[in-house]
Order: sequence, then C-alpha cells, then structure tokens
Amino acid sequence: MKLWEKGIGTDEKISAFTVGNDRELDLHLAKYDAIGSMAHAKMLAKIGLVSQKEADDLVKALEEILSDIENGNFAIEAYFEDVHSKIEFLLIEKLGETGKKIHTARSRNDQVLTDVHLYLKAEISEIKKLVKSLFDLLLDRSEATKNILLPGYTHLQIAMPSSFGMWFAAYAETLVDDMTLLNAAFKVVDQNPLGSAAGYGSSFAIERTFTTNELGFADLKYNPIAAQMSRGKSEKMTAFALSSVAATLSKLSMDVCLYLSQNFNFVSLPTSLTTGSSIMPHKKNPDVFELIRGKSNKIQALPYEITLLTNNLPSGYHRDFQLLKEGIFPAIETLKSCLEMTVFGIENLVVNQDILSDKKYDYLFTVDALNELVSSGIPFRTAYRQVASDIENGKFVSPKATKHTHEGSINNLCLDKIAAKMESGI
Amino acid sequence: MKLWEKGIGTDEKISAFTVGNDRELDLHLAKYDAIGSMAHAKMLAKIGLVSQKEADDLVKALEEILSDIENGNFAIEAYFEDVHSKIEFLLIEKLGETGKKIHTARSRNDQVLTDVHLYLKAEISEIKKLVKSLFDLLLDRSEATKNILLPGYTHLQIAMPSSFGMWFAAYAETLVDDMTLLNAAFKVVDQNPLGSAAGYGSSFAIERTFTTNELGFADLKYNPIAAQMSRGKSEKMTAFALSSVAATLSKLSMDVCLYLSQNFNFVSLPTSLTTGSSIMPHKKNPDVFELIRGKSNKIQALPYEITLLTNNLPSGYHRDFQLLKEGIFPAIETLKSCLEMTVFGIENLVVNQDILSDKKYDYLFTVDALNELVSSGIPFRTAYRQVASDIENGKFVSPKATKHTHEGSINNLCLDKIAAKMESGI
Amino acid sequence: MKLWEKGIGTDEKISAFTVGNDRELDLHLAKYDAIGSMAHAKMLAKIGLVSQKEADDLVKALEEILSDIENGNFAIEAYFEDVHSKIEFLLIEKLGETGKKIHTARSRNDQVLTDVHLYLKAEISEIKKLVKSLFDLLLDRSEATKNILLPGYTHLQIAMPSSFGMWFAAYAETLVDDMTLLNAAFKVVDQNPLGSAAGYGSSFAIERTFTTNELGFADLKYNPIAAQMSRGKSEKMTAFALSSVAATLSKLSMDVCLYLSQNFNFVSLPTSLTTGSSIMPHKKNPDVFELIRGKSNKIQALPYEITLLTNNLPSGYHRDFQLLKEGIFPAIETLKSCLEMTVFGIENLVVNQDILSDKKYDYLFTVDALNELVSSGIPFRTAYRQVASDIENGKFVSPKATKHTHEGSINNLCLDKIAAKMESGI
Amino acid sequence: MKLWEKGIGTDEKISAFTVGNDRELDLHLAKYDAIGSMAHAKMLAKIGLVSQKEADDLVKALEEILSDIENGNFAIEAYFEDVHSKIEFLLIEKLGETGKKIHTARSRNDQVLTDVHLYLKAEISEIKKLVKSLFDLLLDRSEATKNILLPGYTHLQIAMPSSFGMWFAAYAETLVDDMTLLNAAFKVVDQNPLGSAAGYGSSFAIERTFTTNELGFADLKYNPIAAQMSRGKSEKMTAFALSSVAATLSKLSMDVCLYLSQNFNFVSLPTSLTTGSSIMPHKKNPDVFELIRGKSNKIQALPYEITLLTNNLPSGYHRDFQLLKEGIFPAIETLKSCLEMTVFGIENLVVNQDILSDKKYDYLFTVDALNELVSSGIPFRTAYRQVASDIENGKFVSPKATKHTHEGSINNLCLDKIAAKMESGI
Repeated sequence: MKLWEKGIGTDEKISAFTVGNDRELDLHLAKYDAIGSMAHAKMLAKIGLVSQKEADDLVKALEEILSDIENGNFAIEAYFEDVHSKIEFLLIEKLGETGKKIHTARSRNDQVLTDVHLYLKAEISEIKKLVKSLFDLLLDRSEATKNILLPGYTHLQIAMPSSFGMWFAAYAETLVDDMTLLNAAFKVVDQNPLGSAAGYGSSFAIERTFTTNELGFADLKYNPIAAQMSRGKSEKMTAFALSSVAATLSKLSMDVCLYLSQNFNFVSLPTSLTTGSSIMPHKKNPDVFELIRGKSNKIQALPYEITLLTNNLPSGYHRDFQLLKEGIFPAIETLKSCLEMTVFGIENLVVNQDILSDKKYDYLFTVDALNELVSSGIPFRTAYRQVASDIENGKFVSPKATKHTHEGSINNLCLDKIAAKMESGI
Repeated sequence: MKLWEKGIGTDEKISAFTVGNDRELDLHLAKYDAIGSMAHAKMLAKIGLVSQKEADDLVKALEEILSDIENGNFAIEAYFEDVHSKIEFLLIEKLGETGKKIHTARSRNDQVLTDVHLYLKAEISEIKKLVKSLFDLLLDRSEATKNILLPGYTHLQIAMPSSFGMWFAAYAETLVDDMTLLNAAFKVVDQNPLGSAAGYGSSFAIERTFTTNELGFADLKYNPIAAQMSRGKSEKMTAFALSSVAATLSKLSMDVCLYLSQNFNFVSLPTSLTTGSSIMPHKKNPDVFELIRGKSNKIQALPYEITLLTNNLPSGYHRDFQLLKEGIFPAIETLKSCLEMTVFGIENLVVNQDILSDKKYDYLFTVDALNELVSSGIPFRTAYRQVASDIENGKFVSPKATKHTHEGSINNLCLDKIAAKMESGI
Repeated sequence: MKLWEKGIGTDEKISAFTVGNDRELDLHLAKYDAIGSMAHAKMLAKIGLVSQKEADDLVKALEEILSDIENGNFAIEAYFEDVHSKIEFLLIEKLGETGKKIHTARSRNDQVLTDVHLYLKAEISEIKKLVKSLFDLLLDRSEATKNILLPGYTHLQIAMPSSFGMWFAAYAETLVDDMTLLNAAFKVVDQNPLGSAAGYGSSFAIERTFTTNELGFADLKYNPIAAQMSRGKSEKMTAFALSSVAATLSKLSMDVCLYLSQNFNFVSLPTSLTTGSSIMPHKKNPDVFELIRGKSNKIQALPYEITLLTNNLPSGYHRDFQLLKEGIFPAIETLKSCLEMTVFGIENLVVNQDILSDKKYDYLFTVDALNELVSSGIPFRTAYRQVASDIENGKFVSPKATKHTHEGSINNLCLDKIAAKMESGI
Repeated sequence: MKLWEKGIGTDEKISAFTVGNDRELDLHLAKYDAIGSMAHAKMLAKIGLVSQKEADDLVKALEEILSDIENGNFAIEAYFEDVHSKIEFLLIEKLGETGKKIHTARSRNDQVLTDVHLYLKAEISEIKKLVKSLFDLLLDRSEATKNILLPGYTHLQIAMPSSFGMWFAAYAETLVDDMTLLNAAFKVVDQNPLGSAAGYGSSFAIERTFTTNELGFADLKYNPIAAQMSRGKSEKMTAFALSSVAATLSKLSMDVCLYLSQNFNFVSLPTSLTTGSSIMPHKKNPDVFELIRGKSNKIQALPYEITLLTNNLPSGYHRDFQLLKEGIFPAIETLKSCLEMTVFGIENLVVNQDILSDKKYDYLFTVDALNELVSSGIPFRTAYRQVASDIENGKFVSPKATKHTHEGSINNLCLDKIAAKMESGI
C-alpha cells in the first residue's frame, strides 16, 4: 500500500481527517463558549472549587475574549484543535494557573452541548424575527393587492377565481404553522445540559440550577444521559423547524417562477432581480427565486442527514456527533439568507393587472354563476342545466367579479385575524 | 403494445390505479367524515341553504351512520370510490332529496381536509397518552432500580459509572421533548379547513366560525389557499412528531438489544418475549425490540416521503396528495403498536445485579477517586499522579460506589422534576 | 398499565406485532421458495443427506405445490407464520418423514435470501421489459411527431425552438441510463446465497456450486457473512434502480401536467384519461399522470427507508430485516403499474399543432437568426446589432423553422443511434 | 424592512447569494474546462467557424492554462463569477479577438455539463482504484487470519463459529457489488453532452461525434433535452454508487467499534489510531473509525438531497442545478479520504487471539456437534436429544474447531474466486 507515501505524513492525514473543518465551524460557537465558561466560573466559586478572586479574574478575561469575538478580533489558528482549546489557551495566557481551573468539573461533552444549545436558541430567535418580517410584508402586499384577481388552479387546470390578496396571505398564514415548529424547537433547546459532563454526571457537588439561571435557560436537562442524547436530537428538532420554513419558501418560489413564465405572465420582476440573455430580450430568468427554491430544498434534506448520523447508535457519546455541526450551521446561515432574499424578492415583485381579461379564464366563474342561481331559490339541477346550456350556446357571460363574503374569502381575507394568530403564537 | 390485452379492461386498470387502496385507508376517516358532515348540515340550516327540518334529518341519519361505524357495521364496498361517496349514498338512501343537499357549499377537497385534521387530532391525542404511559413506566422503573449500577460508555468504551435508574430516566426525560413536538403538530392540525372548498373559497355565504366551534377546532385556517396547502404540511408536521418519538424508541431498543447480548449481559427478558433456537439453549433473540427498532426506523423515513410527494408542486390541489394517506395512516398505527410493545417490553425487562463486579469495570471509578482527592484539597496534578501511580502499581481500589449529588446525578435523579416538566408540557 | 387488558391476549398482540403482514407479502415469494427447495433437495441427494428416492419425492411434491401457486390455489392461512412454514407443512403432509428432511443443512436465513434474490431477478427482468416497451413507444411517437415544433424553456422562460420529436426522444434516451442501473441491480442479485445458512455457513459438506447452477445464478455469493449482508443491500441496489426509473416517469408526468394546463395547451388527453367537473367544462384533470408522478415520487423515498432500516447495524442477521419486504415488494408492484400507465397515457397523448403560431413564441428564433448571419460570414458583433435592432424596430421576422442539423438536433434526432444504445445495454 | 440597510449593498447581497461558493467548488472543474475547450476549439476549426491557426492558438493557450492548473498556479479571483469566465478571460488576455471565439456554438449549459461528466469520470475511476486497494488489503488480511476463530452473532446473540478470515473477506466480497454500481455510474457519465447547448441544440453545424472522440467519451448523449436532464441524474447515479461504498465502510466501522469495546475485545488499535483520556488508561477511543462511520453515513444522505433539488421540476434548465456541485464535490472528497483512512485503519488493526477460550462462547459449536452426529448416520431426533442432554448435564465438550468445508466456509474461503469476481467486474 503506497497510499500514505505521497509526502504527507500519516499523522497529518489523521489529523486532517479527524479535525475536519471544525476550526471554521467553531467560530459560530466562540461567543457561546465564552458565555458558558463565565457561568461555569461563577458556579465553581459558589461551590468553593475556585476562589472568588479566581472567578472574577476568569470572568473578566472571558469578557475581554467575548469582546474580541464580537469585534472580529478572534481566530482559531491551525495549531488549535477547536474553539474550546483556543479559549482555554487564551485564559491560561492571561491568567496562568487560574486559567487552567476553568475546566474543573466540566467535560468537553457538556461544554459543547451548552455552546450548541445557546447557539441554537440565538439562531432560532433570529430566524423567528426574519419569518415575522416576511409575514408582515406578505400581509402588507395582500392588503394592497386584494382587489387584483388571479385565476386559481387545481391539477394545474384553471379552476376558480383567486386574487393576489388571497395568494400573498396564504403564505403568511402558512408561516404561522412554521412559527409553531420554530417555537417547539426553541423549547427543546432551551434546557441546560451543563453539568452532564461526559454523559454520566460529575462527582463534584456542582450546582446546575445556578448555571441554568445564569445562562438564561428555561429549565435544566436533568438527566446526564438525556443531556448527552440531546446531541443530534436538538439539531434534528431545529432541522425539522428549518425545513418547515424552507418548504414554505420553496413553494412560494415555485409559484413565482411559474407565474413569471410568459405562459402565465401574472407577475414580473425588475431587471436587477433577473438575469437576462445578450440576444434574447424576452428572457427574464428568475435566478434569485430559483436559488431560494433550490437552497430551501437542500435544507429539507438536513433532518435525514442528521437521522443517518445518529440512528441506531446506542446511548452515550460517539465521535460521529462531531459531524453534526457541518450540517446544521450552514443550513441556518442559508435559511437566513433565503428569508432575506425572499423579503427582497417579494418587496420587488410587480403584480400584473387585467390578467382575467384573457378569454381562457372565462370559465373561472361558472360555479359562482351557478351558486348565485341556487341562492336565489332556483333548484340546483335547474340552475345547473341553465348554466350548462348558456355555456354550450356561447351565451355564458362571465361575471368577472366575485361576491365571496365568508371568513377568509376573496372579499373578506381576515388579515387581522391571521395577524392576531401569528401574534399569539410568537 | 399488448399490455392492455390481458383480459383486464382498460377502464378497470385505470380505476384500480387511481383508486388504489383508498377504500381500506378511508375506514380511518369514516367517523370524522360523519362528524364533519353533521357540523356542515347544521351550518347549512343556519344560513338558510337547507331547512331546519332537513338539517335535523341529516344529523339524525349521520348519527346512525356514526353509530354503525363505531360498532363495526360499516364497509366501503368495491363500487364506491371512497368513504365520502359511501356516506353520501347512505344519506340519499335514508333521506332521498335531502341527502343530496349535504354537499352544497362544500367541495371534496375541504371535506377530506377536515376529515384528516379531525383524524390527526384524535390520533395525536392517543399517541400522547401512550407516550405518557411509557414515560410513567420509565420513571417507575428508574425509581425502583436507582441503586443498581451500570457501566456508562462513551465511544462504546467503558467510561464512567451509570445506573439503571439513570438509564431508564434518560429515556423518560427525552420523551418530554418528543411531547413538545407532538403538541406543536397538534396545534398545527387544530385549525378548521372546512369552507375552503376547492382551495379558493365559496361564493355561498357560509359561516366558518360556526363549524369551527361545532367541530371543536381551536381556530380557523382562514385563507383557503393556506387551507389547501395544509394538505401535506399537516401530515409532515405530524410525521416529524411521530419520527421524533420513533427515534427515541429506536435508540432505547438498540440499547436493550446490546445489553441483552451475552457480551454485555446487563438485562434479560422472559422467554415469552424472546424467540429461541431448538438446539442453541443460549439464544434469547430479542425479536420484539428488534422489530420496535426496525419499525421505528421505517417511520423516520415518512417525513422524507411526504416531502417528495409535495415538494416543488405549485400551490393548489394536485391529485398526488391522495397518496399522503398511504404513508401517514399506517405509520400512526405502527407507532401506536410500537409504543404498546415498548411498554410491554420495558415492564418485563429483567435488570441484572452485580454487573460491576466484573474486573473490566474497575476503571469506571478513576475519575471519581481523582475528584475526591481534589475536593479534599489536594492539587489536581498531585492527585492525578497519585491515582495514575496506584493504577500502574495495581494498588488502585475501585470504590464501586458513587457520591454524585448534583441535580440529575446518580444519587439525585430529580425524577419529580422530570415528571413536573412532562406535566407542564402535556 | 391497562394497555394489555382490552380483551386481546398478550400473545396475540406479540404475534400480530412480530408476524406483521408477512403472510400477505410472502405470496410474492411462494414460487421462489418452491423452486429454491427443489434445488436444495437435489443437492441433498447428491451429498447423500437424503436418498435419491427421497429427493425425487420432494421435487415431485414441490412441483405440485408450484403448480398450485401458479394457478392461484395457494394461500398462507392465519395459523402459518410465513410461506416457508406453509410449504414445509405441505411437504410433510404429502410425504411424512421425508418432508421434514427438506430443512436439513439449511437455515431460514439463507432460504429467505435465496427466495428474495430469485424474486428480485424475475421482477427486475419484468421491469426491464416494461421499460423497453415504453422506450419503443417513445421513439415511435418521436419519429411520428418530429416535425411538430414546441417552445423549449430554460428557467421556465421561453428560450429556444424544440419539437415533440425531441421531447419524446429525450425521455427514451434517459431510460437507457435507467436500464444501466437496472442491469447493475440485476448483476448484484444474480448471486446465490443458498448455503450461507445463518450467516456463517454450515458444517455439512453442502455443494453450493451445484445449487448455483440448478437455480440459474450467474455466480455464488461465496462468503456467508457477505451473503447475509446482502440482505438489505440487494434491496437497496434494486431500490436505487427503481427510483431511477421512477424519477424519469415523474419528470415526464410533470411535463405532461404542465403542458396540459390551459396556459401551455401543448397536448391533450382523451376524456377517458382525465377526470372532469360536472359544471366546469374546461376541466380535464390529468389524474393518471398526477398519480404516476406521486407514486413515482414515493418510490424515490424507498432507498432512504432501506438505509434507515439497515444502517449502523453490525454484521450478522437482525430481525429488523424482516421489514425490508414491506417496502420493496409494493414498490415493485407500483413501479410496474406506473410503467404500464405511462405507456397507456403516452399512447393516448394528443399532440397539438401550430403551437408556435402564438406571438409570444416569436423570440424563440432570435439565436437561430443570429447564428445564420454569423455562418454567412458576418462578424458576431455586427450580426448581433442587426438582430437586436430588428427586434427593437419590430422588424424581426421569426423564421418559425429550424435548420439544426447536428447529431441529436431537431432535424437529426438520431433515433436509430439511441435505439442501438438501448439494444447494446439491455 | 431594514434588512438591507446594514451597510451591505443590495447588489452585493444578491451577488453573494447567487454566486455562493462556486469559485471554490469550480477549482475541481478547472482542468476539465480547459480540456473540454480544447476539443471544442478543434471542432470549430473542423467546421470552419474558426481558422486552423486560431484553433492552434486556442489549444496552445489552453495547454498553458492546464499546465498552470495542474501546477497549482490557478485561482478564481473574487471578480470572476466562475471557472468558465476566468478561463475565457485568460484566453482573451493571451489571444485577443481569437479568445472571444471559444464560446461560439456553445452554451454555458453544455460547457458545465461536459466539465462535470469529465470530472465524474475521473473521480469514479479514482474511487474504483481506492476500492480495489481496500479489497486487496481485506483479502490479504483474510488469508493471514483465516485460522483465528471469532464468535458469529445473529440478533447480537452468540450464534455460530466465525473467523477473522471470514469477516475480512465478507467486506471484500461486498465491495464487488459496490464496484458494480460504480461501473454503472461510470457508464452513465461516459456520454458526451457537448453540443446540446442550452438544452435544445445549436443551429450551427457542429460535429458532436468529433468532440466525443477527442474527449474520450464512449458515446454521445444524442438528445439535447436528455443531455440537459442528465444534470442532476448523473450526480444522482454517482451518489448512489458513492453511498453504496459508504454503506460498506460504515458497517465495517460499526463492527470495528463494537469489537474494540472491552465487552467484545476482539481487536485492538495502536495508540496512534486511538484517542485516550488523561486519567482513564483503559480508554482507547476509535475516533478514526467513528468518523469513517459518521462521514459515510452523511454521504448516504446525498442521493436524497439531489432528489429534493431536482424532483418535480419540468424538463429544461433551472438555476437550482447550480447547487448540485455543493453536494457531490465534497462527498467525493470525503469518500476518498474515508477509503484511505479505512485502508490505514485495517492495515493497523490488531487481531486478538484465543477469543473463543472464554466460557460464554462454548455453545457456538452445538450445531456443529449435532450435524456431525447426523452425518455419521444417527437420526436427527436422536442426535438432538443427545446434544441437548449433554448440555443439560454439563457434559457438552465444545470442539472449538470447525470442519466446515463447503465453498465460502471457514476452511474454504474461496478467496481466489472472490478475487476473480472482482477482476472480472472492474
């Protein structure tokens, strides 16, 4: 076997293989590693494993590190394995022996778990804000376009009258359900794993309720094995929520791409949001929406990747879990950018008028006409024969307007009710 | 092409292809179809589309049908396409012209949606009860076995002391998170789609708030397009929750199968729960737990199947959605039976004693011993050298008992706190 | 826990849980179980474990059973666990003590594996035939419609001239790649696992080369552990191939559904292949193609389900594998019916003429016009300015015909070459 | 909406969103972009669209660029969108007007497709070599350890005698099936898409057979729409093959991790291949194998990600396809490193002796003992009673050696036959 004789030493190969891209990914955790360590240091003083002076020094040093992280003055150089060893190195550099005490009564396992839980809490909150922004925008656009009619389709066949108001609001109300799942994911990650050590607890008399309060967690993850099993499970719950939002963005983008096709021509986009062709002046390629769709579809594969990584492994830590970061961190970044881009795209989406003037949409109103006759007292079968005969004889005159009045219908979109539903569920 | 000339007529082929196994699957919906129709009939009377007498007759007939369904006196014969046409047929058979009026101001689309939402609400509630039963049992077994020690593993390597109490409680606390997701799914399906018609509302002045109250939904799904888009999304939300529970059952089963192996020998099962071999007396195959694991793993593929069915389809109804039933209905039945079987299996699981007396588990307590020295004031490095030297010289005496006291640790499992967490989240 | 006190005894619950729907699924294997047993009986005689008379009796009895299976006179009653026990019961019923000898030097494990391999070989062959039928039909339709132009789209935007000939042939040529994967799956399952016993071989001096030849396998799966590991792997390989074909059918159906929309109106279907609406005469819902799409999309989830069932399980048999049948058997049936329905649908698909006469398709030919100028010697930039100026001034006259000549282009579809590629790869 | 007012201009946001990490990923394609362009330039000369001199200049310049790429002197700076624009820029820089002619009669679409097909061909070949290396090593280790016995498990229960020879060879023979799938994927990508332009061919009289031969493709992808549809399909076929190899590596790693556990203790690893603990001398964490398992499991999610990206999109190019590179390129790199690491790990795996001396493995040989009595002429039922009675009375003496002789059994592993099978399928 000559595989190892290409000038790269075995150790380097193993090191590259095991470290992977942790250094880059761990930058997402740096802030939370510092914050988690502050709470841990204070707790160590409380139970007497470090002195108050030592705890104060540790907290002060961690605040400096945190400030560097937030100002972009923090990097994980190639000779550090991960963010945890880098921060520990900085503490020792700043404080000497005191720095070494930070890892007392803690394991790398519960340290990472804590970082990840804090990170996911922050990111889910951020995503919730972006979802709310998109929701508000969709309701605004719905209100503004509520009188502009659109054909509604079933089986991709022209079916019943719809409107831009109804279409925009549909995606808004769907986001309420996505928010429900984001809230569930938030609740699951809002539990403190610190103190679970390597997954079986510690023989030190640590005070986990204290760190729970310090870190702002709603509750403890009491059982250390359960805390350890939350590795992968927290990521999967979050991935379920991400993929729920992503599915909504994907479907919205599919609609937009279809409606932009010259065969529909319901909406258009400003040139800045399309790519064109040097010689085909009709081409207005909706790349941004296609990429929102594609990126959102990729995100929907994430829960399955996480399942494959963790499934059929017995309880207890396995190194495989390190690879969870590679999936969830970029997916969070991608979803945030997709949400921002969707807001941008929907803000700029131009809604075309007079769509229904095209003859092929005349039949949209046959059911309305029929219902009107029934409501006026004509028996259904008689009414049906009359409309059918009108159509056959070319006498059918499409009303091209709707009298829908019920909750949620074209003329009664209940946007305030939908807004209230979102408000109550945030 | 001779494909169609095998004695089966084309129409039959198409019919078999399009109807699929709907008749069988629809039995799950029969009850809810009757209930939904009752509310609809009352609403039709309220807005004057049927008389009060007609509504009373419809409700009475539907109550008879419901009673037949609940007593097992209901079938969907081969000449009916689905449950909806069967129930409509029965109404017409019982009431003549009045029976035909039940479908006024309703579409098959919102009728099915309503059935499915009612069905999912009921089934999620049932699953929550089963999860709670398993949770209670796990806490009971945890309390009863809290003093029986077990090796804890990381990387499948012997690592730290654990206990059966901690192990059982770990799965209990994990179920709390699964319950959070079940609640989220319940909230999503607890919205009334009735009145959304074919996905664009109705021109009749229907009263959707009335049916929402009648059917006990917490809220309306206001927007008809959003209601239509909940087809697939409701199933996926539910599938996320099912697969979350399933992942917990799968991991628990993996642990049990491993612990039953003669190489671990931590637990055993009564003969009735194992399958043996006629000539290998040592074989106690844990088929029940292997099948819980396998069935739970299959369930975890369901969200992906649903995503493939619905992804990249523009808004509006597509016939593809009919196939959603084939996935979610059996998965719900399977998960319920897996939960029942897990309860049965865990009830009967025999916990072995004196596991740690085996020499290979001696090193479990090295960290405890070291921590004890540190807690007594000996500097870490000195303590470390002492333990390491004891091990090297064969002088290390394993304490074989733990002094862990913190929240969640072996001697302080906080079962009441875990129970309270579940209570507050049900 | 009252779960078990609903009038159903525990044993029945366990039995129902463990047997599942094996009796129904095993009907697919009955034929192959009989055939596999014939080869095994002959081999037993060859190595002297049964007499030649006994082997002859066994083979004769199995031939009777096989004949019953093929004539539909075979069932697996509720008191048999599976097809294997039913056939063994029949042999004992027919032959007494001799019947009991059939299981000598064989395990249930390698018996099932052999059945499954024989079954998959037969079904893959059947699917290959159906794929070839569809391929031939697509080429026929391509040849017949090669002069009927169609707009080609990129980004769902009108782009370049295409034709029905090119569109039909595209799916034909894509099926060649699917055939490559079907062949790979066939090769993988065309290896004899019989004799691997429970996954570690047998201490009897069985002759595996003999049964390999008897059963028509191309090769042995020599290693018993490898044979055991082929459980799940064979199914996954087949599932990859099925899902490759399914993806092609899904995309074709998506095109058809889109082209049937009134907004495209490129094709139409006879009434018998659509479902309509009682009052909307314009509705021609393409349910058959929507269901082909949906069923094909479901099939694409199968490899993932199989992966979840088998992943992270160590080598050796696990009862989880029993559940593999539930996924692959129905998927095979579904894909065959989808292929049959696609053939039926494509045969009946009516191709519309004069599509390009619509003004919005004029720009399809701008590139052709430009290329023509370039080919005639006019520098690219000059030609570009001329066409752009013509378009701007409304002087651009669309040629509405193409001069494409290269291999595969509109006027040179190379259908014979594509047919030859398929022929060489069957 | 203040989203866009964070100091980053809209255009930059859109640009970042649409370009993604193409610049980095495209480095994998640079070599093939140069090679594809050489063939294209020669073809342009052949059909007279450029002069022979121009073609020679283009080829010479491309050879220089290729040389720079291979020597690492090539980068895609931030002001280039992708590798194609960078190479075109270099050609224009080197050759002026002649450089601009390279894109005549070619579209970005078929250019990328050609690059990807050439890239996949090269990478599949590379992976095949690595698979063959691992295969050879496994057979070597099998031969060397064929006499060292190991317990065989079913249901994770001790079952029948096995050996290291059988275990190593099992994974070797399984790799033969993976090779079959790699070959199928290779065949699918070994078809020339160049000349399909934007998916509908070109009006120039290009000669596609010429470029097919120049580039060493086995055949043309004749139909331009089929060529365009191979985007995604080629990647998925390759992903199926990658995930097949990955599944084998994952299972092998699971076995190794289990066998390394002190509860099995069948194998061990040199310190350099494990990570330890500062105070737990018994810990030998098999991180390398855990990461091979985890990375291999992640790869198995790739086909589903690709399916989600491409499913339910109608034929024709969509920008979503750009995202395919993000999945397949890293997966190929990861699988190669997993194969290298597996080779390294298996080379260094220490096989423990005398495993079966442990009393708990005595029952492994009961079936062998029974079979021996049957072979010697004792009726099965008598033999069974004798062995069962010996076991009951503690008289059963385990032979601790096997007499298995059939093809593939412990004493007749048929390694030469397995090697021949691989040879014939490479």
